[in-house]
Amino acid sequence: MKEIIIGFLGCGNVGSGVWKLLKSIEKDIAHRMHLSIRVKKVLVRDVNKARNCDVPHELLTASVDELLDDPEITLVVECMGGEQPATEYMLRALRGGKTVVTANKVALALNWHRLQAAAQERNVGLYYEASVCGAIPVINVLQNSLQANRIGHIMGIINGTTNYILSRMYENGEDYRDVLGDAQRLGLAEPNPASDVEGYDAAYKLSIMASLAFHGRVPVSKVYTEGITKLTAMDISCGKEMGYVLKLLAIAKREENTVQVRVHPTFLPESHPLSSVNGSFNAMYLHGHACQEMMLQGRGAGDLPTASAVVSDILHAATVPEHSYPTFANTAEADPSLVFNDNWVSKYFIRLSAEDRPGVLAKIAGWLAQEDVSIATMLQKGRADDGRVPLIFVTHTAPEKSLRKALESFDTALCTVESVIRVEE
Amino acid sequence: MKEIIIGFLGCGNVGSGVWKLLKSIEKDIAHRMHLSIRVKKVLVRDVNKARNCDVPHELLTASVDELLDDPEITLVVECMGGEQPATEYMLRALRGGKTVVTANKVALALNWHRLQAAAQERNVGLYYEASVCGAIPVINVLQNSLQANRIGHIMGIINGTTNYILSRMYENGEDYRDVLGDAQRLGLAEPNPASDVEGYDAAYKLSIMASLAFHGRVPVSKVYTEGITKLTAMDISCGKEMGYVLKLLAIAKREENTVQVRVHPTFLPESHPLSSVNGSFNAMYLHGHACQEMMLQGRGAGDLPTASAVVSDILHAATVPEHSYPTFANTAEADPSLVFNDNWVSKYFIRLSAEDRPGVLAKIAGWLAQEDVSIATMLQKGRADDGRVPLIFVTHTAPEKSLRKALESFDTALCTVESVIRVEE
Repeated sequence: MKEIIIGFLGCGNVGSGVWKLLKSIEKDIAHRMHLSIRVKKVLVRDVNKARNCDVPHELLTASVDELLDDPEITLVVECMGGEQPATEYMLRALRGGKTVVTANKVALALNWHRLQAAAQERNVGLYYEASVCGAIPVINVLQNSLQANRIGHIMGIINGTTNYILSRMYENGEDYRDVLGDAQRLGLAEPNPASDVEGYDAAYKLSIMASLAFHGRVPVSKVYTEGITKLTAMDISCGKEMGYVLKLLAIAKREENTVQVRVHPTFLPESHPLSSVNGSFNAMYLHGHACQEMMLQGRGAGDLPTASAVVSDILHAATVPEHSYPTFANTAEADPSLVFNDNWVSKYFIRLSAEDRPGVLAKIAGWLAQEDVSIATMLQKGRADDGRVPLIFVTHTAPEKSLRKALESFDTALCTVESVIRVEE
Repeated sequence: MKEIIIGFLGCGNVGSGVWKLLKSIEKDIAHRMHLSIRVKKVLVRDVNKARNCDVPHELLTASVDELLDDPEITLVVECMGGEQPATEYMLRALRGGKTVVTANKVALALNWHRLQAAAQERNVGLYYEASVCGAIPVINVLQNSLQANRIGHIMGIINGTTNYILSRMYENGEDYRDVLGDAQRLGLAEPNPASDVEGYDAAYKLSIMASLAFHGRVPVSKVYTEGITKLTAMDISCGKEMGYVLKLLAIAKREENTVQVRVHPTFLPESHPLSSVNGSFNAMYLHGHACQEMMLQGRGAGDLPTASAVVSDILHAATVPEHSYPTFANTAEADPSLVFNDNWVSKYFIRLSAEDRPGVLAKIAGWLAQEDVSIATMLQKGRADDGRVPLIFVTHTAPEKSLRKALESFDTALCTVESVIRVEE
């Protein structure tokens, strides 16, 4: 029986899940893999705080040195979250010859190059399946199943909080603020929800996924990020009437020699496979030149689903004879072979509030046409309380900058732009 | 630059796809992985037959010895299909110290133990991602991403031909024979369609998937197999009216200490994630005790999707320092730790043609109740041409054998059982 002695950095939701999962499969892996995994130390801030799991008190320590300087510990599971001190602790662990398994998207997205350089220097492992989309094996599939593909695009629902909020707004016509409040009460959104609802969480994950898909470093600073805080029940219901479902999508596209990476609310046709991914589920939809369409969906968060990914990394790290590293991850900068395009082409859903008088529609169409933006569908709703008419347009594809320029030319006395939402097919 | 010299056994649809894909990514993998893959020989039956790809004529050979005895060739891609001679050729290759990558579910399901023993003896690789569900990385995910899970069930749509047929029957109310004929004309079904429509193809694949999920050999002989040839447009339209979609499902379930493996037509609620997997798409839906629900969907057949899996195996085999093998696959027999249960519990959709007279309904309910089968929903359709009334019942869950016994007790003068279809949630 091979024994691996490990330490945890952190024992919150994820750490407790990993502890529980390791206990629940102890006998199975002893029997099947002749492997025993012993947790020797668990770093926590307060050793006397009540825990979600039955980690014996004597394993807890508030001293990171005690854990990182223990030569018996050869693998460290980092589940503290946040960039620091997690990054520094991981670097110390790697430099000390310990393999690191992390669930930390922020630390990885920001410091991948430093972490990987440290791992390679000591020839130890750096594993991060749990950093993106919980149990869904996004990292393994991109790295090990799709290497023969040129990935044309990825579209992901990679934040469960916002998907829960948008699903409820879509189903029940509820307002953003009301659903957010409920989600906070249910523990599905943080007291400070910015990281989720502003799209930052998705941007970190997309930076990691896009780097793997494009085989080149895509720093998070290159990800255009727009959250869901300005969306209204009105937008969602108008979209619904036109056959669209609203999702916060993380999109990575390669077109000819350029790439786009962006996180923003997006209307999808009801029939799109991502449209039926509801509630707190996550999904990654992609297209490769050989595999064609593929979608992975599942639980993107939660203690056990995240632990599923962490423990699969631990088991992998414990059994492979040699660790491997993606070559691109050795630099902090964007890969020079990737040309980032922020003037992407899209369809747009535009909701306006317009004066109810003859000729307005013609003027709007004219302003759009000046920038070569043409209208695909139009929907006029009953007159609003302020006497203005809500008008909704969906355009044909147009470059983002042309659309923005056209909107700037609108005469605000005649019509106000209430929302602009991108539409993907 | 590392060079791998390979040979193809077969150059039909899959082989041509692998050739094309290798050519299309040649520069990428040279640049990214410092790897060159040279195809040295391609075994075909007739070297003068026109091919779907531009393999140079001088690579073609009709002599298997020429290929298998070539010491320069270190990896063999088997894409002939069928049990023999593919199995014997693979065994010879492995025994000759060559790694084998295969897309052959039949040969693998039937001879996994012989192939693996040969591979282990020479410490060469045996890879088979393409044997199940084309591009969808079912094998990699079960082996490398879900090791920390006790998988409770897998439900798969793993045969594209039958899914295409059932999708069209569902959408358009068409008859089985008509759609099958169309599918044959379109090349989506074989001239002799038995392997697909009788469920055999799915049974081979399920045998492989279930073995990996349960960490124990599940021979194909243990898979209960029922095809789609007896399904009628009437069954599908009645199910549709009750909110069900009909799919040919491959099911592997673990309940307490028993397992079930079965392929049969199954009604699923419209809202089930598998219900919207239409046309020739494949999908695997599963539940693990840690990951919870997960679904993978994509292209389960076709030259390039299958090549996507084959080439990912080639690239993997070419770069790992050591090959690994699932421990269970060394025996031909069912794993002794697996107790197979063929008296599974299910809900049932039962379509009857009944005499239109008072008391018949009560009698039917009584016959079912005698075996503890209770009715959940009932639907009565207008009287048929023969003066009989079509009656549809959906039962609550009941053991298969009780249901069968109850049906045998029906008085055929009063009612005839037209169809019995299992219902999953």
